Amino acid sequence: MSPQSRLLAAVVCLLTALPLLAAEQGSGGAHGPEVIPFLIGMVVVLLAAKLGGELVERFHQPAVLGELAAGIVLGNLTLLGIHWFEPFKHNEGLLLMAELGVVLLLFEVGLESKMHELFAVGKAAMIVAHVGVILPMLFGYGISLLFLPHEAWYVHLFAGATLAATSVGITARVMQDLKKTDTKEARIVLGAAVVDDVLGLIVLAVVAGMVTSLGASGSAQLDWTPVLWIVFKAAAFLIGAVVIGRQVHVNALRIAQYFRVHGVVLALAISYCFALAALAGMLGLAPIVGAFAAGLVLEEGDYDVFKERGDPPISSLVKPIATIFVPIFFVFMGVRVDLRSFASWQVLGLAAALTVVAVLGKQACSLAVWEKGINRFVIGIGMIPRGEVGLIFVGMGSTLLVNGKPVFDAGMVSAMVVMVMLTTVMTPPLLKMAFDRKVR
Amino acid sequence: MSPQSRLLAAVVCLLTALPLLAAEQGSGGAHGPEVIPFLIGMVVVLLAAKLGGELVERFHQPAVLGELAAGIVLGNLTLLGIHWFEPFKHNEGLLLMAELGVVLLLFEVGLESKMHELFAVGKAAMIVAHVGVILPMLFGYGISLLFLPHEAWYVHLFAGATLAATSVGITARVMQDLKKTDTKEARIVLGAAVVDDVLGLIVLAVVAGMVTSLGASGSAQLDWTPVLWIVFKAAAFLIGAVVIGRQVHVNALRIAQYFRVHGVVLALAISYCFALAALAGMLGLAPIVGAFAAGLVLEEGDYDVFKERGDPPISSLVKPIATIFVPIFFVFMGVRVDLRSFASWQVLGLAAALTVVAVLGKQACSLAVWEKGINRFVIGIGMIPRGEVGLIFVGMGSTLLVNGKPVFDAGMVSAMVVMVMLTTVMTPPLLKMAFDRKVR
Repeated sequence: MSPQSRLLAAVVCLLTALPLLAAEQGSGGAHGPEVIPFLIGMVVVLLAAKLGGELVERFHQPAVLGELAAGIVLGNLTLLGIHWFEPFKHNEGLLLMAELGVVLLLFEVGLESKMHELFAVGKAAMIVAHVGVILPMLFGYGISLLFLPHEAWYVHLFAGATLAATSVGITARVMQDLKKTDTKEARIVLGAAVVDDVLGLIVLAVVAGMVTSLGASGSAQLDWTPVLWIVFKAAAFLIGAVVIGRQVHVNALRIAQYFRVHGVVLALAISYCFALAALAGMLGLAPIVGAFAAGLVLEEGDYDVFKERGDPPISSLVKPIATIFVPIFFVFMGVRVDLRSFASWQVLGLAAALTVVAVLGKQACSLAVWEKGINRFVIGIGMIPRGEVGLIFVGMGSTLLVNGKPVFDAGMVSAMVVMVMLTTVMTPPLLKMAFDRKVR
Repeated sequence: MSPQSRLLAAVVCLLTALPLLAAEQGSGGAHGPEVIPFLIGMVVVLLAAKLGGELVERFHQPAVLGELAAGIVLGNLTLLGIHWFEPFKHNEGLLLMAELGVVLLLFEVGLESKMHELFAVGKAAMIVAHVGVILPMLFGYGISLLFLPHEAWYVHLFAGATLAATSVGITARVMQDLKKTDTKEARIVLGAAVVDDVLGLIVLAVVAGMVTSLGASGSAQLDWTPVLWIVFKAAAFLIGAVVIGRQVHVNALRIAQYFRVHGVVLALAISYCFALAALAGMLGLAPIVGAFAAGLVLEEGDYDVFKERGDPPISSLVKPIATIFVPIFFVFMGVRVDLRSFASWQVLGLAAALTVVAVLGKQACSLAVWEKGINRFVIGIGMIPRGEVGLIFVGMGSTLLVNGKPVFDAGMVSAMVVMVMLTTVMTPPLLKMAFDRKVR
C-alpha cells in the first residue's frame, strides 16, 4: 500500500468512526457524565487537526491552515445534513481548552522571543501599530460611508473601529510553523500586536463612550477619564510584567532551587503564564498579551541551575502541552466560520470591500518601516488577521442602541464576520508566500 | 538566607498574594471573562500543590499527601472566615481539568506497566479483587446492623456495597511518587483495581435493582438481564481495548509514519487514551479504567520508527502534560474534604467503625495471595482507598426512597463521606511504610 493510499484509508476510517463514537455520547455513565463528551470532543478535534495539518503540509502550506480548514468542515457538516458535531460547538470544556491553547501558544512564542531584541525594534513596532490602527479606521469609515450613505456618522466610525485591531494568534502560529519566530520581521509584528491591542482597547473606550453619550440632539460628548485610566492600566501592566514580573519569577526560581518535589519548574512557569494572562484579562487586555509578556520575561539562562541537575529546558516541557491544546484553538476558530454567511451577494459585496481595506490598511503600515533588509511584505501581511477584538466590536455594534436602533444592522454584522473569516484564512498562505519571496 | 527560611518566605508571600489575585477575579474583562477565573484557579491550585508536595516530601512522605493536604486547607479556609477560594470549588473548568488529570495519571501508569506482566499476575489480581469486594460488603453489613439495629436489611446491604469498590487513583499516584509502578505488587493492585471496578459496577446494578423493586410487601425481586448485560459490556470493553484497540493503534502508528506534521505521535496517543476513557465511561465503567487499558496497550517498542527520526519517547511527551493536570485532581480531592463532617461524635463513631472494616476487609484479601516474595502489606494497603464509586453509592443511598424514606439517613451519609476521606488520606503514608518494610 502506498503512503498516499494509506493516508486516504486513514481519512475514510476516521470519518466513518467518529460519528459512531459521537452518536454514543448521549448515553452517559455513572462516573462524571460531563467528562465524556469533553473527551470525545478532544479526540475528534485533535485527529481532525492533525489530518487537516498533514493534508495542507503536502501542499507546502502552514499546518494551521489545515486546522482552520478542518474546523470549517466540522462546523459546517450540518449543511450536509450531518448533525453529530453540533453539541461539541458549545461544549464549555472544549471552548476553555481552545482559550488555554492560544494562551499557551503566545507563551511559547514569547519564550522563543528575547526581550532586548524586541526592544531593539520598539520604534518600528510602535509606528507599525499606530499607522495600522489609524489607516484601517479611516478606510473603514470611507467604505461604510460609500456603501451606506444614508447612515449616521457614528455607524461609519464604529465600522472603522472594527477594522482596527490585529489578532496576532494566527500570525504567531504561522511563524512558528515556518520556524520564523526568530526573525526581525516576527519581532516587529509581535511588538506591534501588543501595542495594537492597547490601541484597540483605547479606540473601543473612546468610540463606545461617544456613541453611548449620544443624546436625542445627535451630538456626542466624551469623558476622557476612563480613557486615561485604560492607558494607565495597560502601561502599568506592561511595565509591571516586565520589571516586577521578572523580579518575582527570578526570585521564585531561586527559591525553587531548594525544592525537591517533581515538576516544580514547569508548574512555576505555567503558573506565571496563567497569572499574567489572567491579570491582562482583568485589565481588559487580551489574555494572550499577558501570556506573551510572561514568555518574553523568562529567559532560558534563568534555568541553568535546573539544567545542571538534569531538568530538560523549559521550552521542551511546554511544547508537548502546547502540541495538544493549540490545535483546539485553531480548529474552533474554523468551526466558527458559518458558510451560510456567504450566501447573500449584498453582504458579500460589503464584506469584500471591508476585507480589501482591512488588508490595504495594514499593508500601508509596513511602508512606515524604512529600515533596510526588512521584508515589508511579511510585516504587512502579518498584521492582516482580525479576530476577537473585531468580533467584540461587532457584538457591541449589534447590541448598542441609538434612538432604539442598533448601530450595526444585520447586513453589516454578517459582512464584518465574513471580513474576520477571510482575513484569518488568507493569512497563512500569504505569509508563507511573503517569507518565500525573501529567500529568492 | 537559609533554604528553610526562603521556603517559609515563599509560603507567606503566596498566601498573601493569592487572595488579592482571587479577589480581583470578579471584575472580568472584554475578552473571554470565563477564562480568567479558570486561569487564576489553575495558578492557585498548582502553586498550592507544589508547596504542599514539597512540605510533605521534607517529612519523607509521597508528594500526593501534600497535594491532598493543600486541598483540605484551601477547601476549609472558609471555616476561618476566609471565603475567596469558595467560587473555585465549583469552577467547571477546574473540575474538568481534575478529571483530565486522573485520566492522564492512569494512562501514564498504564504506559509504565507491561501487558504480559499484568497477565502473569492475573490470577492473583482476580482473587484479590473478589475477596476485596466480598469481605468489605459482609463487614459493612455487620457494622450497619450493629450500629443501626432498627433499620431494614436493605440499609445494611447498601452500606456493605458502599464499602466494596477501591479507587485506584491515590494508590497509582503514590506508587509513581515512590517509583514502584514496576513492581509485582503494583501490578497485582492495578490488575485487581480493574476487576474491582467491574465488580463494583455489578454490585451497584444488583443492589440498586433489588432496592428499587422493593414493594410495600418488603420483598425484593431482581431482574438479572441488566446485570448480565453489564458483565457482557465490561468484558467486551476490556477484551476489545486489548485486542482490537491494540490493532487500531498499531495501524494508526503505521500510517502516522508517513505524516510529516508536527506532534502527530503525541496527538494519536492522547486521542487513543481519551477515546478509551470515554468508551469506558459510556459503558458505565470508570473512565480511568479505559485510560489505564490504553496506556497498557501502548508499548515503547511501537515507537521505534519515530525514535529513529528523532522524536522523544512517548512517555516523556505525556509527562509534562500529566505534571500540570494530575495535581489538580488530588488538590480537588482534598478540597472535597469538609472538616465540618468531623463535628459529631455519633457520626465519627460510625465512621471510625466503617473505616476499620474498610481497611480490614482489604487487608484480608492480601492474605489470598500465597506467592512467595510478595509484600502482602503493599497489596492490602494499596486496595484501601475508597473514592468515586463509594461516593456514587452514598449519593444513590441518600436519594433512593423506600416507602418515602431515603435508604441512608444524614448521619450515615456523613459517616460514609468521612470513611472515604480517611481511607484516602491514610493511604499515602501507610503505603510508604509498607514499601519501606520490604527494604529492611
